[in-house]
Amino acid sequence: MRPTLALLSAELFGGNIMKALNAAIGIELFHNFTLMHDDIMDKAPLRRGKPTVHEKWSASTAILSGDAMFVEAYKMMAKVDDSILREILEIFNETASAVCQGQQSDMNFEKRYDVSIDEYLHMIKQKTAALLAGSMQIGALIGGAAKFQSKLVYEFGENIGLAFQLQDDILDVYGDPLKFGKRIGGDILANKKTFLLIKAKELSKDNRKVELANWLDGTSHEPGEKIKAVISIYDSLEVRKMAEDQMEEFVRKALAALDQIAPENGTKTLLKSFAESLLIREN
Amino acid sequence: MRPTLALLSAELFGGNIMKALNAAIGIELFHNFTLMHDDIMDKAPLRRGKPTVHEKWSASTAILSGDAMFVEAYKMMAKVDDSILREILEIFNETASAVCQGQQSDMNFEKRYDVSIDEYLHMIKQKTAALLAGSMQIGALIGGAAKFQSKLVYEFGENIGLAFQLQDDILDVYGDPLKFGKRIGGDILANKKTFLLIKAKELSKDNRKVELANWLDGTSHEPGEKIKAVISIYDSLEVRKMAEDQMEEFVRKALAALDQIAPENGTKTLLKSFAESLLIREN
Repeated sequence: MRPTLALLSAELFGGNIMKALNAAIGIELFHNFTLMHDDIMDKAPLRRGKPTVHEKWSASTAILSGDAMFVEAYKMMAKVDDSILREILEIFNETASAVCQGQQSDMNFEKRYDVSIDEYLHMIKQKTAALLAGSMQIGALIGGAAKFQSKLVYEFGENIGLAFQLQDDILDVYGDPLKFGKRIGGDILANKKTFLLIKAKELSKDNRKVELANWLDGTSHEPGEKIKAVISIYDSLEVRKMAEDQMEEFVRKALAALDQIAPENGTKTLLKSFAESLLIREN
Repeated sequence: MRPTLALLSAELFGGNIMKALNAAIGIELFHNFTLMHDDIMDKAPLRRGKPTVHEKWSASTAILSGDAMFVEAYKMMAKVDDSILREILEIFNETASAVCQGQQSDMNFEKRYDVSIDEYLHMIKQKTAALLAGSMQIGALIGGAAKFQSKLVYEFGENIGLAFQLQDDILDVYGDPLKFGKRIGGDILANKKTFLLIKAKELSKDNRKVELANWLDGTSHEPGEKIKAVISIYDSLEVRKMAEDQMEEFVRKALAALDQIAPENGTKTLLKSFAESLLIREN
Protein backbone atom coordinates (compact mmCIF):
# COMPACT_ATOMS: atom_id res chain seq x y z
CA MET A 1 0.00 0.00 0.00
CA ARG A 2 2.74 2.51 0.93
CA PRO A 3 4.68 2.28 -2.34
CA THR A 4 1.41 2.46 -4.32
CA LEU A 5 0.38 5.59 -2.47
CA ALA A 6 3.83 7.11 -3.06
CA LEU A 7 3.50 6.45 -6.79
CA LEU A 8 -0.05 7.81 -6.90
CA SER A 9 1.10 10.93 -5.04
CA ALA A 10 3.70 11.55 -7.73
CA GLU A 11 1.09 11.03 -10.43
CA LEU A 12 -1.31 13.38 -8.67
CA PHE A 13 0.97 16.28 -9.61
CA GLY A 14 1.49 15.12 -13.15
CA GLY A 15 4.79 13.41 -12.39
CA ASN A 16 5.77 10.23 -14.17
CA ILE A 17 5.31 7.47 -11.63
CA MET A 18 8.58 5.88 -12.79
CA LYS A 19 10.43 8.83 -11.27
CA ALA A 20 9.07 7.85 -7.85
CA LEU A 21 9.83 4.15 -8.26
CA ASN A 22 13.18 4.11 -6.42
CA ALA A 23 11.73 6.04 -3.50
CA ALA A 24 8.72 3.70 -3.42
CA ILE A 25 11.09 0.73 -3.26
CA GLY A 26 13.04 2.49 -0.50
CA ILE A 27 9.84 2.95 1.49
CA GLU A 28 8.91 -0.71 1.12
CA LEU A 29 12.45 -1.75 2.16
CA PHE A 30 12.19 0.49 5.21
CA HIS A 31 8.77 -0.87 6.11
CA ASN A 32 9.99 -4.46 5.84
CA PHE A 33 13.07 -3.66 7.93
CA THR A 34 10.79 -2.39 10.72
CA LEU A 35 8.60 -5.49 10.44
CA MET A 36 11.67 -7.73 10.68
CA HIS A 37 12.83 -6.01 13.88
CA ASP A 38 9.28 -5.73 15.31
CA ASP A 39 8.82 -9.46 14.80
CA ILE A 40 11.90 -10.16 16.92
CA MET A 41 10.59 -7.90 19.68
CA ASP A 42 7.10 -9.43 19.52
CA LYS A 43 8.52 -12.97 19.27
CA ALA A 44 6.19 -13.43 16.28
CA PRO A 45 6.48 -16.89 14.70
CA LEU A 46 4.76 -15.98 11.42
CA ARG A 47 4.62 -13.06 8.99
CA ARG A 48 2.36 -13.22 5.94
CA GLY A 49 1.80 -16.88 6.75
CA LYS A 50 5.47 -17.77 6.58
CA PRO A 51 8.10 -18.25 9.31
CA THR A 52 9.65 -14.95 10.39
CA VAL A 53 13.34 -14.34 9.66
CA HIS A 54 14.39 -14.77 13.30
CA GLU A 55 12.45 -18.05 13.46
CA LYS A 56 13.78 -19.45 10.22
CA TRP A 57 17.38 -18.22 10.63
CA SER A 58 18.21 -16.54 13.93
CA ALA A 59 17.64 -13.34 15.87
CA SER A 60 21.14 -12.21 14.90
CA THR A 61 20.38 -12.69 11.22
CA ALA A 62 17.11 -10.80 11.58
CA ILE A 63 18.79 -7.89 13.42
CA LEU A 64 21.59 -7.61 10.90
CA SER A 65 19.44 -8.16 7.80
CA GLY A 66 17.12 -5.45 9.07
CA ASP A 67 20.05 -3.07 9.55
CA ALA A 68 21.31 -3.83 6.05
CA MET A 69 17.83 -3.30 4.56
CA PHE A 70 17.65 0.06 6.32
CA VAL A 71 20.88 1.09 4.56
CA GLU A 72 19.44 -0.14 1.24
CA ALA A 73 16.34 1.94 1.90
CA TYR A 74 18.51 5.05 2.31
CA LYS A 75 20.37 4.21 -0.88
CA MET A 76 17.11 4.03 -2.86
CA MET A 77 15.88 7.23 -1.22
CA ALA A 78 19.04 9.11 -2.14
CA LYS A 79 18.41 8.47 -5.85
CA VAL A 80 16.10 11.47 -6.11
CA ASP A 81 17.16 14.61 -7.96
CA ASP A 82 19.66 16.93 -6.32
CA SER A 83 17.07 19.69 -6.12
CA ILE A 84 14.89 17.75 -3.64
CA LEU A 85 17.47 15.44 -2.05
CA ARG A 86 17.73 17.33 1.25
CA GLU A 87 13.97 17.76 1.58
CA ILE A 88 13.27 14.08 0.88
CA LEU A 89 15.92 12.96 3.34
CA GLU A 90 14.53 15.21 6.04
CA ILE A 91 11.05 13.75 5.59
CA PHE A 92 12.44 10.22 5.51
CA ASN A 93 14.55 10.80 8.64
CA GLU A 94 11.62 12.32 10.54
CA THR A 95 9.42 9.44 9.45
CA ALA A 96 11.97 6.85 10.55
CA SER A 97 12.38 8.56 13.95
CA ALA A 98 8.60 8.63 14.41
CA VAL A 99 8.28 4.93 13.58
CA CYS A 100 10.97 4.01 16.13
CA GLN A 101 9.37 6.20 18.79
CA GLY A 102 5.92 4.79 18.05
CA GLN A 103 7.20 1.25 18.38
CA GLN A 104 8.82 2.10 21.74
CA SER A 105 5.56 3.66 22.99
CA ASP A 106 3.63 0.61 21.83
CA MET A 107 5.98 -1.62 23.85
CA ASN A 108 5.75 0.68 26.88
CA PHE A 109 1.94 0.55 26.69
CA GLU A 110 2.05 -3.24 27.12
CA LYS A 111 3.21 -2.75 30.69
CA ARG A 112 0.78 0.07 31.50
CA TYR A 113 -2.86 -0.10 32.53
CA ASP A 114 -3.66 3.61 32.29
CA VAL A 115 -3.01 4.49 28.63
CA SER A 116 -5.30 7.34 27.51
CA ILE A 117 -7.01 7.73 24.12
CA ASP A 118 -4.78 10.76 23.41
CA GLU A 119 -1.65 8.74 24.14
CA TYR A 120 -2.95 5.93 21.99
CA LEU A 121 -3.72 8.20 19.04
CA HIS A 122 -0.28 9.79 19.35
CA MET A 123 1.33 6.34 19.33
CA ILE A 124 -0.48 5.13 16.19
CA LYS A 125 0.23 8.48 14.53
CA GLN A 126 3.94 7.74 14.98
CA LYS A 127 3.99 4.00 14.48
CA THR A 128 1.58 3.66 11.56
CA ALA A 129 0.34 6.95 10.12
CA ALA A 130 3.72 8.72 9.84
CA LEU A 131 5.13 6.27 7.30
CA LEU A 132 2.02 6.36 5.16
CA ALA A 133 2.03 10.16 5.31
CA GLY A 134 5.77 10.43 4.67
CA SER A 135 5.55 8.03 1.72
CA MET A 136 2.88 10.17 0.11
CA GLN A 137 4.71 13.44 0.78
CA ILE A 138 7.90 12.04 -0.75
CA GLY A 139 5.97 10.83 -3.78
CA ALA A 140 4.29 14.23 -4.15
CA LEU A 141 7.60 16.12 -4.06
CA ILE A 142 9.10 13.78 -6.64
CA GLY A 143 6.00 14.37 -8.76
CA GLY A 144 6.64 18.10 -8.68
CA ALA A 145 4.39 19.27 -5.86
CA ALA A 146 5.13 22.61 -4.20
CA LYS A 147 6.04 22.41 -0.54
CA PHE A 148 2.60 23.51 0.73
CA GLN A 149 0.92 20.98 -1.54
CA SER A 150 3.19 18.21 -0.29
CA LYS A 151 2.15 19.12 3.26
CA LEU A 152 -1.50 18.69 2.38
CA VAL A 153 -0.70 15.31 0.89
CA TYR A 154 1.06 14.46 4.17
CA GLU A 155 -2.06 15.48 6.08
CA PHE A 156 -4.18 13.29 3.82
CA GLY A 157 -1.87 10.33 4.36
CA GLU A 158 -1.60 10.81 8.11
CA ASN A 159 -5.36 10.86 8.60
CA ILE A 160 -5.86 7.91 6.29
CA GLY A 161 -3.21 6.06 8.30
CA LEU A 162 -4.98 6.83 11.57
CA ALA A 163 -8.30 5.70 10.10
CA PHE A 164 -6.71 2.48 8.89
CA GLN A 165 -5.38 1.64 12.32
CA LEU A 166 -8.78 2.24 13.90
CA GLN A 167 -10.35 0.05 11.22
CA ASP A 168 -7.83 -2.65 12.12
CA ASP A 169 -8.80 -2.35 15.80
CA ILE A 170 -12.49 -2.69 14.89
CA LEU A 171 -11.99 -5.57 12.45
CA ASP A 172 -10.03 -7.55 15.04
CA VAL A 173 -13.23 -7.71 17.08
CA TYR A 174 -16.09 -7.27 14.61
CA GLY A 175 -14.56 -8.31 11.31
CA ASP A 176 -15.63 -11.16 9.10
CA PRO A 177 -13.13 -13.95 9.95
CA LEU A 178 -13.04 -14.98 6.29
CA LYS A 179 -12.24 -11.47 5.03
CA PHE A 180 -10.01 -10.31 7.91
CA GLY A 181 -7.36 -12.99 7.42
CA LYS A 182 -6.38 -12.93 11.09
CA ARG A 183 -7.97 -14.67 14.05
CA ILE A 184 -10.86 -12.66 15.49
CA GLY A 185 -10.20 -11.45 19.04
CA GLY A 186 -6.41 -11.65 18.85
CA ASP A 187 -6.06 -8.17 20.34
CA ILE A 188 -8.43 -9.09 23.18
CA LEU A 189 -6.47 -12.22 24.08
CA ALA A 190 -3.21 -10.23 24.07
CA ASN A 191 -4.77 -7.45 26.22
CA LYS A 192 -3.66 -5.09 23.47
CA LYS A 193 -4.41 -1.47 24.22
CA THR A 194 -6.63 -0.72 21.26
CA PHE A 195 -9.04 2.18 20.87
CA LEU A 196 -11.86 -0.16 21.90
CA LEU A 197 -10.20 -1.43 25.06
CA ILE A 198 -9.01 2.00 26.20
CA LYS A 199 -12.48 3.47 25.65
CA ALA A 200 -14.10 0.56 27.47
CA LYS A 201 -11.80 1.05 30.46
CA GLU A 202 -12.55 4.75 30.46
CA LEU A 203 -16.32 4.32 30.34
CA SER A 204 -16.93 1.23 32.44
CA LYS A 205 -18.11 1.72 36.01
CA ASP A 206 -18.72 -0.31 39.16
CA ASN A 207 -19.38 -4.00 38.47
CA ARG A 208 -18.54 -3.78 34.80
CA LYS A 209 -15.22 -2.10 35.60
CA VAL A 210 -14.33 -4.94 37.97
CA GLU A 211 -15.47 -7.52 35.44
CA LEU A 212 -13.30 -6.02 32.67
CA ALA A 213 -10.31 -5.77 35.02
CA ASN A 214 -10.73 -9.45 35.91
CA TRP A 215 -10.68 -10.52 32.28
CA LEU A 216 -7.53 -8.45 31.76
CA ASP A 217 -5.71 -9.51 34.92
CA GLY A 218 -6.31 -13.24 34.90
CA THR A 219 -4.07 -15.51 32.90
CA SER A 220 -6.04 -18.74 32.98
CA HIS A 221 -9.18 -17.69 31.08
CA GLU A 222 -10.52 -19.96 28.37
CA PRO A 223 -9.73 -17.96 25.17
CA GLY A 224 -13.16 -18.22 23.54
CA GLU A 225 -14.88 -17.28 26.77
CA LYS A 226 -12.64 -14.25 27.31
CA ILE A 227 -13.25 -12.95 23.76
CA LYS A 228 -17.01 -13.39 24.13
CA ALA A 229 -17.11 -11.67 27.52
CA VAL A 230 -14.97 -8.69 26.49
CA ILE A 231 -16.98 -8.19 23.29
CA SER A 232 -20.16 -8.20 25.35
CA ILE A 233 -18.68 -5.41 27.53
CA TYR A 234 -17.69 -3.49 24.38
CA ASP A 235 -21.23 -3.89 23.02
CA SER A 236 -22.90 -2.69 26.19
CA LEU A 237 -20.67 0.43 26.22
CA GLU A 238 -21.09 1.00 22.49
CA VAL A 239 -17.35 1.54 21.96
CA ARG A 240 -17.55 0.25 18.40
CA LYS A 241 -19.62 3.26 17.37
CA MET A 242 -17.13 5.59 19.08
CA ALA A 243 -14.27 4.04 17.18
CA GLU A 244 -16.24 4.34 13.95
CA ASP A 245 -17.03 7.99 14.68
CA GLN A 246 -13.36 8.68 15.37
CA MET A 247 -12.41 6.89 12.18
CA GLU A 248 -14.92 8.94 10.24
CA GLU A 249 -13.46 12.13 11.68
CA PHE A 250 -10.01 11.14 10.39
CA VAL A 251 -11.40 10.31 6.95
CA ARG A 252 -13.22 13.68 6.81
CA LYS A 253 -9.95 15.44 7.71
CA ALA A 254 -8.14 13.49 5.01
CA LEU A 255 -10.77 14.44 2.43
CA ALA A 256 -10.65 18.08 3.50
CA ALA A 257 -6.88 18.13 2.95
CA LEU A 258 -7.29 16.46 -0.44
CA ASP A 259 -9.93 19.01 -1.43
CA GLN A 260 -7.40 21.82 -0.99
CA ILE A 261 -4.96 20.25 -3.42
CA ALA A 262 -5.29 22.01 -6.76
CA PRO A 263 -5.09 19.45 -9.57
CA GLU A 264 -8.40 17.90 -10.54
CA ASN A 265 -7.53 14.68 -12.27
CA GLY A 266 -8.19 10.97 -12.29
CA THR A 267 -5.60 10.32 -9.61
CA LYS A 268 -7.29 12.74 -7.24
CA THR A 269 -10.62 11.02 -7.87
CA LEU A 270 -8.97 7.69 -7.18
CA LEU A 271 -7.47 8.88 -3.87
CA LYS A 272 -10.84 10.34 -2.92
CA SER A 273 -12.72 7.09 -3.48
CA PHE A 274 -9.96 5.24 -1.66
CA ALA A 275 -10.55 7.46 1.39
CA GLU A 276 -14.33 7.23 1.06
CA SER A 277 -14.19 3.44 1.00
CA LEU A 278 -13.14 3.71 4.64
CA LEU A 279 -16.47 5.37 5.44
CA ILE A 280 -18.55 2.33 4.55
CA ARG A 281 -19.63 0.69 7.78
CA GLU A 282 -19.91 -3.05 7.74
CA ASN A 283 -22.25 -4.95 9.98
CA MET B 1 39.20 7.60 17.48
CA ARG B 2 36.88 7.74 14.43
CA PRO B 3 35.45 11.20 15.13
CA THR B 4 38.95 12.51 15.93
CA LEU B 5 40.28 11.18 12.65
CA ALA B 6 37.30 12.73 10.82
CA LEU B 7 38.07 16.12 12.39
CA LEU B 8 41.80 15.81 11.66
CA SER B 9 40.99 14.91 8.04
CA ALA B 10 39.00 18.13 7.70
CA GLU B 11 41.86 20.09 9.26
CA LEU B 12 44.36 18.44 6.93
CA PHE B 13 42.86 20.39 4.04
CA GLY B 14 42.68 23.65 5.91
CA GLY B 15 39.04 23.18 6.88
CA ASN B 16 37.74 24.42 10.21
CA ILE B 17 37.25 21.30 12.32
CA MET B 18 33.97 22.72 13.61
CA LYS B 19 32.50 22.24 10.13
CA ALA B 20 33.10 18.50 10.46
CA LEU B 21 31.71 18.26 13.99
CA ASN B 22 28.17 17.13 13.07
CA ALA B 23 29.52 14.47 10.72
CA ALA B 24 31.97 13.32 13.42
CA ILE B 25 29.08 12.99 15.87
CA GLY B 26 27.11 11.10 13.21
CA ILE B 27 29.99 8.67 12.79
CA GLU B 28 30.23 8.07 16.52
CA LEU B 29 26.45 7.54 16.74
CA PHE B 30 26.66 5.05 13.88
CA HIS B 31 29.58 3.23 15.50
CA ASN B 32 27.75 2.96 18.81
CA PHE B 33 24.60 1.74 17.08
CA THR B 34 26.63 -1.10 15.53
CA LEU B 35 28.18 -1.93 18.92
CA MET B 36 24.74 -2.04 20.53
CA HIS B 37 23.46 -4.51 17.94
CA ASP B 38 26.73 -6.51 17.87
CA ASP B 39 26.54 -6.89 21.65
CA ILE B 40 23.08 -8.49 21.34
CA MET B 41 24.37 -10.89 18.69
CA ASP B 42 27.47 -11.74 20.73
CA LYS B 43 25.45 -11.96 23.97
CA ALA B 44 28.09 -9.64 25.49
CA PRO B 45 27.37 -8.80 29.13
CA LEU B 46 29.70 -5.79 29.32
CA ARG B 47 30.79 -2.88 27.15
CA ARG B 48 33.41 -0.43 28.41
CA GLY B 49 33.13 -2.09 31.80
CA LYS B 50 29.42 -1.40 32.12
CA PRO B 51 26.37 -3.61 31.52
CA THR B 52 25.35 -3.65 27.85
CA VAL B 53 21.99 -2.11 26.86
CA HIS B 54 20.33 -5.48 26.24
CA GLU B 55 21.57 -6.71 29.65
CA LYS B 56 20.48 -3.63 31.56
CA TRP B 57 17.17 -3.07 29.73
CA SER B 58 16.18 -5.71 27.19
CA ALA B 59 17.07 -7.02 23.75
CA SER B 60 14.04 -5.17 22.35
CA THR B 61 15.25 -1.90 23.81
CA ALA B 62 18.74 -2.48 22.41
CA ILE B 63 17.40 -3.31 18.94
CA LEU B 64 15.12 -0.29 18.83
CA SER B 65 17.58 2.15 20.43
CA GLY B 66 20.15 1.05 17.89
CA ASP B 67 17.71 1.66 15.04
CA ALA B 68 16.87 5.09 16.42
CA MET B 69 20.57 5.96 16.81
CA PHE B 70 21.12 4.94 13.19
CA VAL B 71 18.46 7.47 12.14
CA GLU B 72 20.12 10.12 14.32
CA ALA B 73 23.44 9.33 12.64
CA TYR B 74 21.86 9.98 9.23
CA LYS B 75 20.38 13.24 10.53
CA MET B 76 23.81 14.46 11.68
CA MET B 77 25.37 13.34 8.42
CA ALA B 78 22.81 15.23 6.35
CA LYS B 79 23.87 18.52 7.94
CA VAL B 80 26.73 18.95 5.49
CA ASP B 81 26.60 21.59 2.76
CA ASP B 82 24.37 20.98 -0.25
CA SER B 83 27.38 20.87 -2.54
CA ILE B 84 28.74 17.68 -0.95
CA LEU B 85 25.55 16.15 0.49
CA ARG B 86 25.15 13.45 -2.14
CA GLU B 87 28.83 12.49 -2.08
CA ILE B 88 28.91 12.26 1.73
CA LEU B 89 25.73 10.16 1.81
CA GLU B 90 27.12 7.78 -0.79
CA ILE B 91 30.27 7.23 1.26
CA PHE B 92 28.25 6.84 4.45
CA ASN B 93 25.84 4.37 2.81
CA GLU B 94 28.67 2.31 1.35
CA THR B 95 30.43 2.33 4.71
CA ALA B 96 27.30 1.22 6.54
CA SER B 97 26.71 -1.60 4.03
CA ALA B 98 30.30 -2.75 4.42
CA VAL B 99 30.05 -2.81 8.23
CA CYS B 100 26.86 -4.93 8.08
CA GLN B 101 28.43 -7.33 5.58
CA GLY B 102 31.61 -7.57 7.64
CA GLN B 103 29.62 -8.40 10.76
CA GLN B 104 27.70 -11.11 8.88
CA SER B 105 30.98 -12.62 7.60
CA ASP B 106 32.45 -12.53 11.10
CA MET B 107 29.44 -14.47 12.39
CA ASN B 108 29.64 -16.93 9.49
CA PHE B 109 33.33 -17.51 10.26
CA GLU B 110 32.43 -18.69 13.77
CA LYS B 111 30.85 -21.79 12.25
CA ARG B 112 33.62 -22.43 9.74
CA TYR B 113 36.96 -24.16 10.21
CA ASP B 114 38.49 -23.32 6.82
CA VAL B 115 38.60 -19.50 6.76
CA SER B 116 41.54 -18.30 4.64
CA ILE B 117 43.78 -15.29 5.34
CA ASP B 118 42.32 -13.56 2.28
CA GLU B 119 38.79 -14.04 3.54
CA TYR B 120 39.83 -12.83 6.96
CA LEU B 121 41.47 -9.69 5.60
CA HIS B 122 38.39 -8.97 3.48
CA MET B 123 36.17 -9.37 6.54
CA ILE B 124 38.17 -6.96 8.74
CA LYS B 125 38.38 -4.53 5.81
CA GLN B 126 34.57 -4.39 5.85
CA LYS B 127 33.88 -4.71 9.55
CA THR B 128 36.60 -2.44 10.95
CA ALA B 129 38.65 -0.61 8.33
CA ALA B 130 35.75 0.69 6.18
CA LEU B 131 34.31 2.87 8.92
CA LEU B 132 37.66 4.36 9.83
CA ALA B 133 38.37 5.01 6.15
CA GLY B 134 34.89 6.40 5.47
CA SER B 135 35.09 8.68 8.52
CA MET B 136 38.34 10.16 7.27
CA GLN B 137 37.10 10.57 3.68
CA ILE B 138 33.97 12.34 4.90
CA GLY B 139 36.07 14.63 7.09
CA ALA B 140 38.42 15.37 4.19
CA LEU B 141 35.55 16.32 1.85
CA ILE B 142 34.04 18.60 4.46
CA GLY B 143 37.48 20.15 4.91
CA GLY B 144 37.58 21.00 1.21
CA ALA B 145 39.57 18.09 -0.25
CA ALA B 146 39.26 17.35 -3.95
CA LYS B 147 37.77 13.96 -4.80
CA PHE B 148 41.12 12.32 -5.65
CA GLN B 149 42.59 13.64 -2.40
CA SER B 150 39.66 12.29 -0.40
CA LYS B 151 40.30 8.89 -1.98
CA LEU B 152 43.90 8.94 -0.79
CA VAL B 153 42.68 9.80 2.69
CA TYR B 154 40.31 6.83 2.45
CA GLU B 155 43.25 4.61 1.47
CA PHE B 156 45.23 5.89 4.45
CA GLY B 157 42.31 5.20 6.80
CA GLU B 158 41.59 1.77 5.39
CA ASN B 159 45.17 0.57 5.80
CA ILE B 160 45.43 2.07 9.27
CA GLY B 161 42.21 0.27 10.16
CA LEU B 162 43.57 -3.05 8.90
CA ALA B 163 46.81 -2.51 10.84
CA PHE B 164 44.83 -1.72 13.98
CA GLN B 165 42.84 -4.93 13.76
CA LEU B 166 46.01 -6.97 13.33
CA GLN B 167 47.52 -5.17 16.31
CA ASP B 168 44.42 -6.12 18.29
CA ASP B 169 44.87 -9.76 17.28
CA ILE B 170 48.50 -9.67 18.37
CA LEU B 171 47.84 -7.84 21.65
CA ASP B 172 45.16 -10.36 22.64
CA VAL B 173 47.93 -12.95 22.78
CA TYR B 174 51.17 -11.06 23.39
CA GLY B 175 49.99 -7.82 24.96
CA ASP B 176 50.83 -6.50 28.39
CA PRO B 177 47.74 -7.39 30.46
CA LEU B 178 48.03 -4.09 32.32
CA LYS B 179 48.15 -1.99 29.15
CA PHE B 180 45.76 -4.06 27.00
CA GLY B 181 42.76 -3.67 29.29
CA LYS B 182 41.26 -6.98 28.21
CA ARG B 183 41.98 -10.49 29.39
CA ILE B 184 44.93 -12.00 27.54
CA GLY B 185 43.97 -15.04 25.45
CA GLY B 186 40.28 -14.17 25.10
CA ASP B 187 40.38 -14.80 21.34
CA ILE B 188 42.08 -18.17 21.90
CA LEU B 189 39.44 -19.30 24.39
CA ALA B 190 36.66 -18.25 22.00
CA ASN B 191 38.37 -20.03 19.05
CA LYS B 192 38.17 -16.69 17.29
CA LYS B 193 39.47 -16.82 13.73
CA THR B 194 42.24 -14.24 14.08
CA PHE B 195 45.17 -13.73 11.76
CA LEU B 196 47.30 -15.74 14.18
CA LEU B 197 44.98 -18.72 14.38
CA ILE B 198 44.29 -18.86 10.65
CA LYS B 199 48.03 -18.70 9.89
CA ALA B 200 48.77 -21.36 12.49
CA LYS B 201 46.17 -23.67 10.97
CA GLU B 202 47.60 -23.05 7.52
CA LEU B 203 51.21 -23.76 8.54
CA SER B 204 50.89 -26.54 11.09
CA LYS B 205 51.59 -30.08 9.94
CA ASP B 206 51.31 -33.66 11.23
CA ASN B 207 51.33 -33.87 15.03
CA ARG B 208 51.12 -30.13 15.57
CA LYS B 209 48.10 -29.92 13.25
CA VAL B 210 46.34 -32.62 15.27
CA GLU B 211 47.33 -30.95 18.53
CA LEU B 212 45.93 -27.56 17.43
CA ALA B 213 42.73 -29.18 16.17
CA ASN B 214 42.30 -30.90 19.54
CA TRP B 215 42.59 -27.63 21.44
CA LEU B 216 40.01 -26.07 19.10
CA ASP B 217 37.57 -28.98 19.08
CA GLY B 218 37.45 -29.86 22.75
CA THR B 219 35.15 -27.97 25.06
CA SER B 220 36.43 -29.11 28.43
CA HIS B 221 39.95 -27.68 28.37
CA GLU B 222 41.24 -25.83 31.40
CA PRO B 223 41.35 -22.20 30.12
CA GLY B 224 44.87 -21.34 31.29
CA GLU B 225 46.23 -24.58 29.87
CA LYS B 226 44.55 -24.03 26.50
CA ILE B 227 45.91 -20.47 26.20
CA LYS B 228 49.43 -21.65 27.09
CA ALA B 229 49.34 -24.55 24.65
CA VAL B 230 47.99 -22.53 21.71
CA ILE B 231 50.53 -19.74 22.32
CA SER B 232 53.28 -22.34 22.31
CA ILE B 233 52.06 -23.55 18.90
CA TYR B 234 51.95 -19.95 17.66
CA ASP B 235 55.50 -19.42 18.91
CA SER B 236 56.87 -22.52 17.24
CA LEU B 237 55.30 -21.47 13.91
CA GLU B 238 56.39 -17.83 14.32
CA VAL B 239 52.94 -16.51 13.36
CA ARG B 240 53.45 -13.40 15.47
CA LYS B 241 56.19 -12.20 13.14
CA MET B 242 53.97 -12.86 10.13
CA ALA B 243 51.18 -10.81 11.64
CA GLU B 244 53.62 -8.02 12.43
CA ASP B 245 54.99 -8.12 8.87
CA GLN B 246 51.47 -7.93 7.48
CA MET B 247 50.68 -5.06 9.82
CA GLU B 248 53.82 -3.26 8.72
CA GLU B 249 52.79 -3.67 5.09
CA PHE B 250 49.46 -1.98 5.82
CA VAL B 251 51.16 0.88 7.66
CA ARG B 252 53.58 1.35 4.75
CA LYS B 253 50.62 1.51 2.33
CA ALA B 254 48.92 4.03 4.57
CA LEU B 255 52.06 6.20 4.69
CA ALA B 256 52.48 5.96 0.91
CA ALA B 257 48.92 7.24 0.43
CA LEU B 258 49.51 10.05 2.92
CA ASP B 259 52.71 11.03 1.11
CA GLN B 260 50.72 11.69 -2.07
CA ILE B 261 48.42 14.17 -0.35
CA ALA B 262 49.59 17.68 -1.18
CA PRO B 263 49.34 19.87 1.92
CA GLU B 264 52.40 19.84 4.15
CA ASN B 265 51.18 20.99 7.52
CA GLY B 266 51.11 20.08 11.18
CA THR B 267 48.07 17.86 10.76
CA LYS B 268 49.82 15.78 8.13
CA THR B 269 52.82 15.39 10.43
CA LEU B 270 50.47 14.33 13.20
CA LEU B 271 48.74 11.71 11.04
CA LYS B 272 52.15 10.47 9.92
CA SER B 273 53.42 9.93 13.45
CA PHE B 274 50.11 8.34 14.38
CA ALA B 275 50.64 5.77 11.60
CA GLU B 276 54.31 5.32 12.48
CA SER B 277 53.46 4.59 16.11
CA LEU B 278 51.94 1.37 14.81
CA LEU B 279 55.36 0.31 13.52
CA ILE B 280 56.94 0.11 16.96
CA ARG B 281 57.19 -3.53 17.94
CA GLU B 282 56.73 -4.33 21.58
CA ASN B 283 58.32 -7.35 23.22
